[in-house]
Amino acid sequence: MADKKPLILVCNDDGITAPGIRHLVETMNELGEVVVVAPDGPQSGMGHAITINGILRCDEIKIEEGPQTEYSCTGTPVDCVKLAVNVVLDRKPDLVVSGINHGSNSSINVIYSGTMSAAVEGSLEGIPSIGFSLSDFSWEANFKPAQKYIKEIAAKTLKEGLPYGTCLNVNIPKHTGEEYKGVKVCRQAKANWEEEFDSRTDPRGRNYYWLTGKFVDYDKGQDTDEWALANYYISVVPVNSDITAHHLINELNDWDL
Amino acid sequence: MADKKPLILVCNDDGITAPGIRHLVETMNELGEVVVVAPDGPQSGMGHAITINGILRCDEIKIEEGPQTEYSCTGTPVDCVKLAVNVVLDRKPDLVVSGINHGSNSSINVIYSGTMSAAVEGSLEGIPSIGFSLSDFSWEANFKPAQKYIKEIAAKTLKEGLPYGTCLNVNIPKHTGEEYKGVKVCRQAKANWEEEFDSRTDPRGRNYYWLTGKFVDYDKGQDTDEWALANYYISVVPVNSDITAHHLINELNDWDL
Repeated sequence: MADKKPLILVCNDDGITAPGIRHLVETMNELGEVVVVAPDGPQSGMGHAITINGILRCDEIKIEEGPQTEYSCTGTPVDCVKLAVNVVLDRKPDLVVSGINHGSNSSINVIYSGTMSAAVEGSLEGIPSIGFSLSDFSWEANFKPAQKYIKEIAAKTLKEGLPYGTCLNVNIPKHTGEEYKGVKVCRQAKANWEEEFDSRTDPRGRNYYWLTGKFVDYDKGQDTDEWALANYYISVVPVNSDITAHHLINELNDWDL
Repeated sequence: MADKKPLILVCNDDGITAPGIRHLVETMNELGEVVVVAPDGPQSGMGHAITINGILRCDEIKIEEGPQTEYSCTGTPVDCVKLAVNVVLDRKPDLVVSGINHGSNSSINVIYSGTMSAAVEGSLEGIPSIGFSLSDFSWEANFKPAQKYIKEIAAKTLKEGLPYGTCLNVNIPKHTGEEYKGVKVCRQAKANWEEEFDSRTDPRGRNYYWLTGKFVDYDKGQDTDEWALANYYISVVPVNSDITAHHLINELNDWDL
């Protein structure tokens, strides 16, 4: 075909039936030919984990009506991208989109996020890739007002491309009923989780723990994703898979190791 | 005590009984008071995964003789560091060391590695942190010739410290019998895995896959970790938990999103 539609791979970490990915599929159907390869269940907080000591399944499935093709996979979000590119698809996708995550992946959350790791993996396959997240954990979250921004960012990324090994981390504030103020290109805020493990005793008298904690933003900058989200902007952070701290190389050379 | 020993937290991703962590414990016992908080089984390739939908166990255990205290945990390497800092230890460690990994974590492997994610997590707790890996998957790998380098890098890191959110990725070539050539401070090589999924059929006729692949180094630079390892140097790459692609921010602003 002279006018071939772009091929768009859709993944997430909340599982293939999550409302967030359903909204993303609906939006991407307007931009290209959509293939969904996503986890069969929740894979939140899986970071860049891959399955090396076990097997993977990946089966075609019909989740809902629409022109998209869909595959449900065991394994992590990163496994899904690898399976999609190497097993499922017969040509390289033009775009990888991941999400829409139920919950923010701004700031340091980017490194724990399965949603964002799928996008990073796409970038390592040489495909322009974007992770989308909404700062709303609710299963009934209102994704609708973000759709025009998501479509625009995806269309722009399809047109412009991204350098090898880089991708976009897009976070969207929870909708308040008012129109979003717009989009801001940002850096990752310096913030962290202050953990408080919830210690309990099981029915047999053994201790166990639940990970819990509080997110603390240490960053006063107005160029961060946290600032943008707090001020009702959609944040776009470019993310690098080269995690070398280049600015420390000279200092370490002075250590005379 | 006027002359309090530094407190050193030891973690890994191959599990608490792996020979690699046993060698690291032995070496760290020469530098300080050692507490081991490590996974109860293999957690390779877990990246920065954390356990948010399940419980964690963390129990004191005696693996072998020595002055160290040891805890075996369910969960990922990152869970172990969080549990250590927030539940197990009564003061903040002066150093987190992770490994010695059975297999290289150079180049892009850093983002898949549970060993390195434990070090990154230590850096996010504000603790100077190092991941050590040996390019030898064998359970009988020869860790001994690397010990003096590991001790020196750890001692230097204890003395100099590292900026918040940064850590060191130390990779050691497989020992050939000859003396290592020394230590090189490097950047992460641009390289990737070319996956080839091994597709099989189970006894019930359903398809399944094993992830496999070949590591390909695309980087001609002589300042990379891959170059150092290929030339029999120990590589030290400073790693950043801020993964913003700062160099792309201006370009993205031109997109007029």
